[in-house]
Amino acid sequence: MSDASQAFRVPRDELERFMLAVLARAGADALSAEAVTRALVTASRMGTDSHGLRLLPHYIHALKGGRISGAPEMHFERRLPATGYLDAGDGFGHLAGYTAMEHAAAMADEVGVGAVAVGRSSHFGAAGCYALAAAERGLLGLAVCNSDPFVLLHQGSRPFHGTNPIAFAAPVEGENPFLLDMATSSIPWNRVQQYGAIGRELPDQVAADSAGGVTRIPAEVAALLPLGGSDFGFKGAGLGGMVEVLSSTLSGMLHGFRLLPMGGPDMTTPRGVGHFFLALRPDAFAPGDPFPEGMRRYLEDLRAQPGRGSARVMAPGDREWGCRARRDAEGIPLDSANQRAYAELAETLNVPALQPVV
Amino acid sequence: MSDASQAFRVPRDELERFMLAVLARAGADALSAEAVTRALVTASRMGTDSHGLRLLPHYIHALKGGRISGAPEMHFERRLPATGYLDAGDGFGHLAGYTAMEHAAAMADEVGVGAVAVGRSSHFGAAGCYALAAAERGLLGLAVCNSDPFVLLHQGSRPFHGTNPIAFAAPVEGENPFLLDMATSSIPWNRVQQYGAIGRELPDQVAADSAGGVTRIPAEVAALLPLGGSDFGFKGAGLGGMVEVLSSTLSGMLHGFRLLPMGGPDMTTPRGVGHFFLALRPDAFAPGDPFPEGMRRYLEDLRAQPGRGSARVMAPGDREWGCRARRDAEGIPLDSANQRAYAELAETLNVPALQPVV
Repeated sequence: MSDASQAFRVPRDELERFMLAVLARAGADALSAEAVTRALVTASRMGTDSHGLRLLPHYIHALKGGRISGAPEMHFERRLPATGYLDAGDGFGHLAGYTAMEHAAAMADEVGVGAVAVGRSSHFGAAGCYALAAAERGLLGLAVCNSDPFVLLHQGSRPFHGTNPIAFAAPVEGENPFLLDMATSSIPWNRVQQYGAIGRELPDQVAADSAGGVTRIPAEVAALLPLGGSDFGFKGAGLGGMVEVLSSTLSGMLHGFRLLPMGGPDMTTPRGVGHFFLALRPDAFAPGDPFPEGMRRYLEDLRAQPGRGSARVMAPGDREWGCRARRDAEGIPLDSANQRAYAELAETLNVPALQPVV
Repeated sequence: MSDASQAFRVPRDELERFMLAVLARAGADALSAEAVTRALVTASRMGTDSHGLRLLPHYIHALKGGRISGAPEMHFERRLPATGYLDAGDGFGHLAGYTAMEHAAAMADEVGVGAVAVGRSSHFGAAGCYALAAAERGLLGLAVCNSDPFVLLHQGSRPFHGTNPIAFAAPVEGENPFLLDMATSSIPWNRVQQYGAIGRELPDQVAADSAGGVTRIPAEVAALLPLGGSDFGFKGAGLGGMVEVLSSTLSGMLHGFRLLPMGGPDMTTPRGVGHFFLALRPDAFAPGDPFPEGMRRYLEDLRAQPGRGSARVMAPGDREWGCRARRDAEGIPLDSANQRAYAELAETLNVPALQPVV
């Protein structure tokens, strides 16, 4: 969806103002509201619209239902010098994520690596937010999370893993970080719905019908295929499994197949989502700290590669940083569905409506 | 290639005897010969034939040429409690890999996580060997390595990354580990050659011609596509980039695009391959050590999933453990090209010829 088609755009600080107010009115404490706002605005600025402002109404619903605690007692225990466990107290996954990565980063500062498993958490938005938080501190960051089952196993016929994302970020001196943030399916579930709504066929090898056979017809889709499709989906499914092992088994949570559905109808019972975060100090490996210069040379070579036809080759994150600059200048777009949802939030929670760029 | 079509099979210990002797005669010291043999036999037993016994003649060639040192001075420095750097002294990547993972595991035992970057190394065979070594010690293991450029960037027209593998293993109580070992391309380069030799078309979306366009004709192939193909290759390319960042930039080595080609013709100059290894203690996160039971429940649910048609759903590694059991019972097959190459090694290096199962 191109920004140009969306006339309603809001400045970043106005979006932040609105989100903070709405979250506070719905019962979130200051730390929770700030973390959710930070994550959603980060995603929306970068163009990750599936995990940006679109999710606010869902979170408010879960908060009001009681599934998510707006004033959680989060408890961090450092178990060993490089590891820890965060009990997120059924609070917002965004607060859990930023908190856990902060602990991982502090351990990395001290011993070179920090790894934190998080239990009793909830949906944390875009995994990239937390990897990015590490990179903004000069660290390599990895963030993974399980989610409810939409994706087939390789040669399976029933959804088992979630879209279980992997986010990895690395700092680049004087530039925006290297940032990979990917689901281990080819497409997200809401892409199926979007294509269905406009009567468009899906790409090949991304979705399956109820028997596990590949289909390109949105109405027939019962599950997503793992990245790699029917021939090479053992790779996407294996990566999804790695994410599952790191996020639910280390934290002692239920694995994705047994999670309560994100979409409800039960909005009262905490879901017990698990996450995993890793931070690494890049100067704690080879002597002489070759990392900054190595990243520079690598990205220079990468960006100089010739594209196919008129395409331009980009590093992971380049598209997102371009979008962020554009949206910081022009405002963040809301499509008509989001405009309606935000107007409703303003009315229901008695918060001044979102003011667009004029 | 099915085992049944290959009549020449050797027992595991006979293959080990032969490899150790050949490596010693070609100038490898005992530790190097043992590490190479361990890795190649591990891969061959599991059916990872692209990274098994097939590679021995190549390694002997590199050893005799001087590219690889058979008696390297490897030097490990623990930089911080959870990190270290192994200078592999231009020795075998297999010895570097096992040594580095051993150091990572020792640090994980002590502080919960150990991460080791390796520089001045060489091809290490199958990444899975080293992740497996961690899991055999009760740890989660991650192993990645860059390699010379065969794979396009997303929307690129020139090979840039190697097939940059990711291997991840997790221990499972009373069972073989969970083991993912995957290239970040869909297929390996030698698959193109195999298909070309038998006049078979490649699957769609796995390879490209010299302009970066998808082709299924082996003779036209100039590069591999990253996992995800032309639509979703930003995921495979991003994962390949993550591998590159971890293996070459942390270790201060040249990134894959600038590596000397594995295949020569220069067999005298060390290539300076980089690797990265991570080990995590699964009992160092959530209190009460829920990991073993969590893995058991996860794999039980996974293996109980219904397959598509008559297919069976498997966990990462299940296929390999099945193959290992079969080959341990029946012997490890050598195709005719490998039989010839092994006969030549026996003759050139004056080592008793490999004796097949009778």
